[in-house]
Amino acid sequence: MEVAQVLCMNGGVGDASYANNSLVQQKVICLTKPIREEAITSLYCSKLPKSLAIADLGCSSGPNTLFVVSELIETVEKLCRQLNHKSPEYKVFLNDLPGNDFNNIFKSIDSFKDKLQNELEGGPCYFSGVPGSFYGRVFPSRSLHFVHSSYSLQWLSKVPEGVDNNKENIYLGRTSPSSVVRAYYDQFQRDFSLFLKCRAEELVEGGRMALTFLGRRNEDPCSKDGCYIWELMASALNDMVSQGMIKEEQVDSFNIPQYTPSPSEVKLEVLKEGSFSINRLEVSAVNWNALDDWNALEFESERFESVGDGGYNVAQCMRAVAEPMLVSHFGEDIIEEVFSRYQQILADRMAKEKTKFFNVTILLTRKT
Amino acid sequence: MEVAQVLCMNGGVGDASYANNSLVQQKVICLTKPIREEAITSLYCSKLPKSLAIADLGCSSGPNTLFVVSELIETVEKLCRQLNHKSPEYKVFLNDLPGNDFNNIFKSIDSFKDKLQNELEGGPCYFSGVPGSFYGRVFPSRSLHFVHSSYSLQWLSKVPEGVDNNKENIYLGRTSPSSVVRAYYDQFQRDFSLFLKCRAEELVEGGRMALTFLGRRNEDPCSKDGCYIWELMASALNDMVSQGMIKEEQVDSFNIPQYTPSPSEVKLEVLKEGSFSINRLEVSAVNWNALDDWNALEFESERFESVGDGGYNVAQCMRAVAEPMLVSHFGEDIIEEVFSRYQQILADRMAKEKTKFFNVTILLTRKT
Repeated sequence: MEVAQVLCMNGGVGDASYANNSLVQQKVICLTKPIREEAITSLYCSKLPKSLAIADLGCSSGPNTLFVVSELIETVEKLCRQLNHKSPEYKVFLNDLPGNDFNNIFKSIDSFKDKLQNELEGGPCYFSGVPGSFYGRVFPSRSLHFVHSSYSLQWLSKVPEGVDNNKENIYLGRTSPSSVVRAYYDQFQRDFSLFLKCRAEELVEGGRMALTFLGRRNEDPCSKDGCYIWELMASALNDMVSQGMIKEEQVDSFNIPQYTPSPSEVKLEVLKEGSFSINRLEVSAVNWNALDDWNALEFESERFESVGDGGYNVAQCMRAVAEPMLVSHFGEDIIEEVFSRYQQILADRMAKEKTKFFNVTILLTRKT
Repeated sequence: MEVAQVLCMNGGVGDASYANNSLVQQKVICLTKPIREEAITSLYCSKLPKSLAIADLGCSSGPNTLFVVSELIETVEKLCRQLNHKSPEYKVFLNDLPGNDFNNIFKSIDSFKDKLQNELEGGPCYFSGVPGSFYGRVFPSRSLHFVHSSYSLQWLSKVPEGVDNNKENIYLGRTSPSSVVRAYYDQFQRDFSLFLKCRAEELVEGGRMALTFLGRRNEDPCSKDGCYIWELMASALNDMVSQGMIKEEQVDSFNIPQYTPSPSEVKLEVLKEGSFSINRLEVSAVNWNALDDWNALEFESERFESVGDGGYNVAQCMRAVAEPMLVSHFGEDIIEEVFSRYQQILADRMAKEKTKFFNVTILLTRKT
């Protein structure tokens, strides 16, 4: 399985599309807004660029794609008004793997630009789509001021080597052998360190980078924090094995190319690579069923039971992310069954436990 | 009909796709190669840029999309070797309307880059897709060194106003009233002059621009040179009107947003706008059935009868270009019938006349 070929969110705008199932990702973007505001403000005030180049890495395709860019531009425009400066020209680069649905993004850019002009009367804004893996050079040298990436860097460049004996798991889990844990962590270290090296060449001196990983709070890479959501998908697949609907070898050879790092693991790579200073490192959480959070905010209370059909919402969210990978490995035919079972398992667990995704956010400045 | 919404070549890679029916456009690109070679050579030698920004406007999606870029890079790499210079970093911007199939282009970029690296061992190459109408600003100020556009600038930004009385025609034709001719020409002047103004802001001083229009040799805008291909499509539609398959009003209200200028019309706008000096202005021709030309080249002879199924080839070529517009105006149902009739009419004419497209190519330098 070539990750760059199958790691793409479900395209289009249908029921199973990423565009319609990315509320968790949106919630995370909202949670981390203060960090980006701080970053773009200090960047603008220190550089006062006439032309401001912003890149969103792993932009995907949906309502979230232009959300961060719009918020960053809004912040800069406010600053310009306060400081009585002329608005800069904005260069916006939207990056994702070549399989991403860029056509869908591009169709919405004209109306987005009109809105920006009418509401903010801001500087001119030039958009481009940049296909390619961020585990390699994507942009010209010293061409970016601000890099943002949310919920993308947990994806590895490939399934780690040496994970064949991770029986009945599709990602790390409680029963994963230590050699498998080591293989996943090694791959994360190699990938993230390459990412940092490439971005260090692409960012101007003093440029900022705000990165949010789907990660974990604690140091155990096999803890529920990062693994539980996949362990439950593995349960659905294993149930289908026991009923003869899938072959055992198929599940054994299916591995999610992901690593959910802890804050200290993220920090360690940044320190080792050496091009960036760390401004902030934070952990936040969001319920699996993102609707719960919106509700909790509204009523200022936390509840265990899920709002709406929580199992369905979470299954759809995971389907938008994982379906292309599952189809590539298992074929189309089992998909409905897998997600119907997964939905039931999720609903059951969510009624009994507090189930959350944990986000590791780091804010970096390119050293001079 | 909003031109930016319906003016797109047929997407995908099927029988009726632009990708599989763009041999004429490829032939034209080959014919105009010497002009681009001259331009990029003199640009490189005068500027010696460390980072070379190339834009292809109206890049479309198919085998031609990366053809010109690859040829330009090859020429620069040869120069670098001759002059013993370090290769520049290449920034390549592929522009078309937002409805263009960028996804299709993006999927081929990785292998294109690999090929470029392996065969040329050239400088690093950064690609981006830039959606938007070139009758407006598309790129940041002073950000481009070389602009190329082939077979795109004959498309107008919209159907001209005041062409309601162009009965039985879908573009200019022998029976077009002079007010209609004036309306089309006015729209061309407004559009091309805006194009020049925008590019003048985007190009660096001394930057080059090589533009090829589908145009005409002579001064009569209603001559066969630029109109015949559409007059024959109008014949097919009018036949269907007389057989009650389409309403007369539908054909009367369908107008192709195109203008096929003469060399002097192109030159006049450049002189009026004033930002560019003219290095070259040339007319070339290519047979409607592009396969004829390849053949003529091979056997050093010109022939009247078409190679292969000429009517089919030309109808498919025009279908790839016009189908989205026709579908938007007439609906899906009549498409097969229109092109089946069109193919017969084309085959008949091509057996009796020499039928050619005429290309107006202009090479410009941004004044300092």
